[in-house]
Amino acid sequence: MAEQIVKIGLVQRPNSSNPKDNLYGHMGLIRKASEKGAQIVCLQELFNTPYFCTEYNNEYFDWAEPLDGVLVSSMQNLAEELEVVIIAPFFERRASGVYHNSLVVIDADGTKMGCYRKTHIPDDPGFYEKYYFTPGDEDTGFKVFETRYASIGTLICWDQWYPEAARITAMKGAEILFYPTAIGTLATEGKTDKKKFKTAWETIQCSHAIANGCYVASVNRVGKEYGSRFWGGSFVAGPFGEMIAQAGNKEEVLVTACNLGNIEKQRQEWPFFRDRRIDLYAPLTKRVDD
Amino acid sequence: MAEQIVKIGLVQRPNSSNPKDNLYGHMGLIRKASEKGAQIVCLQELFNTPYFCTEYNNEYFDWAEPLDGVLVSSMQNLAEELEVVIIAPFFERRASGVYHNSLVVIDADGTKMGCYRKTHIPDDPGFYEKYYFTPGDEDTGFKVFETRYASIGTLICWDQWYPEAARITAMKGAEILFYPTAIGTLATEGKTDKKKFKTAWETIQCSHAIANGCYVASVNRVGKEYGSRFWGGSFVAGPFGEMIAQAGNKEEVLVTACNLGNIEKQRQEWPFFRDRRIDLYAPLTKRVDD
Repeated sequence: MAEQIVKIGLVQRPNSSNPKDNLYGHMGLIRKASEKGAQIVCLQELFNTPYFCTEYNNEYFDWAEPLDGVLVSSMQNLAEELEVVIIAPFFERRASGVYHNSLVVIDADGTKMGCYRKTHIPDDPGFYEKYYFTPGDEDTGFKVFETRYASIGTLICWDQWYPEAARITAMKGAEILFYPTAIGTLATEGKTDKKKFKTAWETIQCSHAIANGCYVASVNRVGKEYGSRFWGGSFVAGPFGEMIAQAGNKEEVLVTACNLGNIEKQRQEWPFFRDRRIDLYAPLTKRVDD
Repeated sequence: MAEQIVKIGLVQRPNSSNPKDNLYGHMGLIRKASEKGAQIVCLQELFNTPYFCTEYNNEYFDWAEPLDGVLVSSMQNLAEELEVVIIAPFFERRASGVYHNSLVVIDADGTKMGCYRKTHIPDDPGFYEKYYFTPGDEDTGFKVFETRYASIGTLICWDQWYPEAARITAMKGAEILFYPTAIGTLATEGKTDKKKFKTAWETIQCSHAIANGCYVASVNRVGKEYGSRFWGGSFVAGPFGEMIAQAGNKEEVLVTACNLGNIEKQRQEWPFFRDRRIDLYAPLTKRVDD
């Protein structure tokens, strides 16, 4: 396979409770990623707000932005100026009473290519997302965007635990699966929990790269917010699950070269797609087997 | 959740080209596993023969055994005597011209519970399995056996790369997924390949434990056969993907305690099953999205 290099930038930044400051801060880091050669830049989940789902508070709905508002147009202008693709995850107000945990993909000419709305919504102590977010539906579903530099699949956080989501997105042609994320530990959880959670988080995402023979890029939040400690550690895995770059636990712009030519090579050497037994997979659309 | 301990034994043994010797050798190791407290013992893929799929040779079909022959009855007698569950993977002659890469599950009273036939069949340099084995079909499908000591799911080798197989088997109620396997490197492959392959092999199987909140036990071959070097390293992963025991690269009987009570606990803490979006998974039954 011919070499086909694309440079991707993963941005992790501690946020304040001021969305405008966070927006400007992240725009500065997108510039930095571009200076370092990034062609596709992905921000963390809900990039311009704190991770507010640690409590039930309907005032936070005021932070939601429409898909045609200032947040998105700011990203469009920046993408066009820098000629970078931007993946910007944000709290979306879709309609009165319908809010999503979304992301918008902007092509390198500033075109808004579309949005993806988080499909699997968690709800656990400290992560009360079912209160805030309507799950993504058939209209948006699993998505691949054919950007100027690569075909990219986009999923958000909790989606990462579902091999089904990675598989369907890869089958649609994704060369790189991007997972903006907010994962960390609560004040009640210690170092042992962190190690256990972080290892499982890395393992499951590397496994999507292996099963699907594609790149996986996970972009995590960082810093302390409302009692949650996000551990950063954003990373890129190659198409056999090998970790090729990983950030630390502070603000960081991680720029990594991916050779998209490796994808087809990997799928020829370990031809998993060839042997899927689609005649036996119908039970996957059931809740349980009872 | 109440503690519910079950001890499982994973047996890896270098085979000669004499099936009878291999049968007796493995029976001795099942006794050893039982002495060490194992209640469920799993043998390696095609346990009583060499891994013969490294070449095309129709003489090897003579090694195939029926489901009601001496191999299976020997296992039944031993299971009854030791009161252990035995998972015995072997080359099955189902009918004239129809051969499978199968396993039989014997309950702790010697009852033959049924067989599972490998669903995903590889075919790569040195692993010419499509020549020898008809893939498992709807009749056998993905299987769970409610044995005396645990509900166990059984899959074989190449199946391990398919999250679909693990998911469906777990949904059927498997508490432990057993993967008898034959994985190694060819003479042309070096240490770097081995490290890459072995890491991916461990990662994908630990990911099945994570995604499904269950135990995973992988039993690999060991030793040099016809140019292939099997690396052993049989292991058990807990329900959040943590490696809890692993064998070396020689003959070994690895006996490990699993607390089945951890399964429901894990699924309550990280409730992945709750949020599966079965309304969006229909594309999994397609070959590709084109």
